[in-house]
Amino acid sequence: MHTSLDCIPCFVRQTLDACRKGSDDPAIHEQVLREVLHWISEMDLSLSPPALAQRIHRRLREITGDENPYEKDKAAHNQLALSLLPALEKKVQASHDPLIEATQLAIAGNIIDLGAKSGLSEGDVLEALEHAASVALTGDVEAYRAAVSSAKRILYLADNAGEIIFDRLLIEQLGGGRVTVAVRGRPIINDATLIDAEVAGLGKFTTVIDNGSDAPGTLLDECSEAFQRCFHEADLILSKGQGNYESLSGSSHPQIFFLFKVKCPVVAETANTPMGSHALLQNQPIS
Amino acid sequence: MHTSLDCIPCFVRQTLDACRKGSDDPAIHEQVLREVLHWISEMDLSLSPPALAQRIHRRLREITGDENPYEKDKAAHNQLALSLLPALEKKVQASHDPLIEATQLAIAGNIIDLGAKSGLSEGDVLEALEHAASVALTGDVEAYRAAVSSAKRILYLADNAGEIIFDRLLIEQLGGGRVTVAVRGRPIINDATLIDAEVAGLGKFTTVIDNGSDAPGTLLDECSEAFQRCFHEADLILSKGQGNYESLSGSSHPQIFFLFKVKCPVVAETANTPMGSHALLQNQPIS
Repeated sequence: MHTSLDCIPCFVRQTLDACRKGSDDPAIHEQVLREVLHWISEMDLSLSPPALAQRIHRRLREITGDENPYEKDKAAHNQLALSLLPALEKKVQASHDPLIEATQLAIAGNIIDLGAKSGLSEGDVLEALEHAASVALTGDVEAYRAAVSSAKRILYLADNAGEIIFDRLLIEQLGGGRVTVAVRGRPIINDATLIDAEVAGLGKFTTVIDNGSDAPGTLLDECSEAFQRCFHEADLILSKGQGNYESLSGSSHPQIFFLFKVKCPVVAETANTPMGSHALLQNQPIS
Repeated sequence: MHTSLDCIPCFVRQTLDACRKGSDDPAIHEQVLREVLHWISEMDLSLSPPALAQRIHRRLREITGDENPYEKDKAAHNQLALSLLPALEKKVQASHDPLIEATQLAIAGNIIDLGAKSGLSEGDVLEALEHAASVALTGDVEAYRAAVSSAKRILYLADNAGEIIFDRLLIEQLGGGRVTVAVRGRPIINDATLIDAEVAGLGKFTTVIDNGSDAPGTLLDECSEAFQRCFHEADLILSKGQGNYESLSGSSHPQIFFLFKVKCPVVAETANTPMGSHALLQNQPIS
């Protein structure tokens, strides 16, 4: 997916958020913002939003020296999600359709996205999880069910810290043995890395790898060889979040489902799914 | 008021809105946005937001050739406001405190601000007007009442088209004879100009002037001599909207009340008023 002009105000806001988390010095904030604005004014809009965000955040790290500005947010979101997990596990177990119940909860957890929105309260997360099952699920649920049922190797692309703990509910339903979970290769915005997968306890019942990349999405060419092999060998890819959708939509892989909460008007229009809805979109490979 | 770094994402959004209204050509939108981003990266942040917006919109007009991109919005907002006017006039007449009732309605009308927000539905306007009286009014109401009661010459600085029709309710309460209403000197965003004052019927019972400027606020040094005289001779200035607040806050004029709906976090913080509230703030001259 190309970057839209409407992504630009959001990049500017994201830059401000990240540099404020990385430094208390208003002079640094101004310097960073001016530099990023100048840089955005010349950027290649044929790249995907995660590819541009990756470059912006690399530069931010260079200037502020902070390798992980969202560290505190990620830890707080993990703790919040862990505190909710036992009750949600019971909810899934009691459901007449545990696969879809867990899918809805995993998608609801995608509200924890500090790339799409500056502030996120505990109340926002609680509300999203509480009403997860009643949010419209946009996509071919039966095709998804069939793909999950027949898949031998599933690659699960995680998105954010905190959210990855809700992903555990779905990964348990998939049966951890055939699933590999991939996280980002290094900190980028509030995306999940190996440490978050560990907090989620995923290593106990499934394989966890990192993708070797610092993009807030999946830029396949830049990912590690091990990740690329896993990607090509999987007969089903479950891809969480807008960033993975923005970077993998149209991929030649024959079976990808994109699972995300629609949080931005550009993605809503591209994916033809309403704002706020839960997307469960089957990839349409572009040949 | 200086421009905050947080104003910048909003300038970028405003630029996109305005150039899309002024041209259907995506190549023009991209050219304009790149140019404005480059320009913002070097701008003087000690200027007020309306001073910067003025420069951005001048450049937009040069590129697109469209002198009045918000013309249709303004006409639609005027029509909507006119359709609501008779019922609101009755409401004010029936009120036990018609001055404050009309003040609340005039401030509620300040929701019609396409600088602060991209989309504004008819429902947003209807809701704001319906609940106007119950929104918290932040400020010294008794000082305002006393200033209105004793003023001999009132200068009323209008803000937006549509809104100016709700201003009529308040101007009627003030008694039109001692009031001069000032509008912008030429089209800028959806701010009111002489044509909107005419649609509002203000000329029938009060004096209407334009301020000679194309800023979405009041940059006094750039306003016409006639306006400046009026400004200095008035013993009370009622200033509508965030743009006038951003450009006149701290002015040396001894008696200004700023009336606006708080629609942006930067203004909310500077004015120490909650988002969504109705501000009725007395100017604190900075010597």
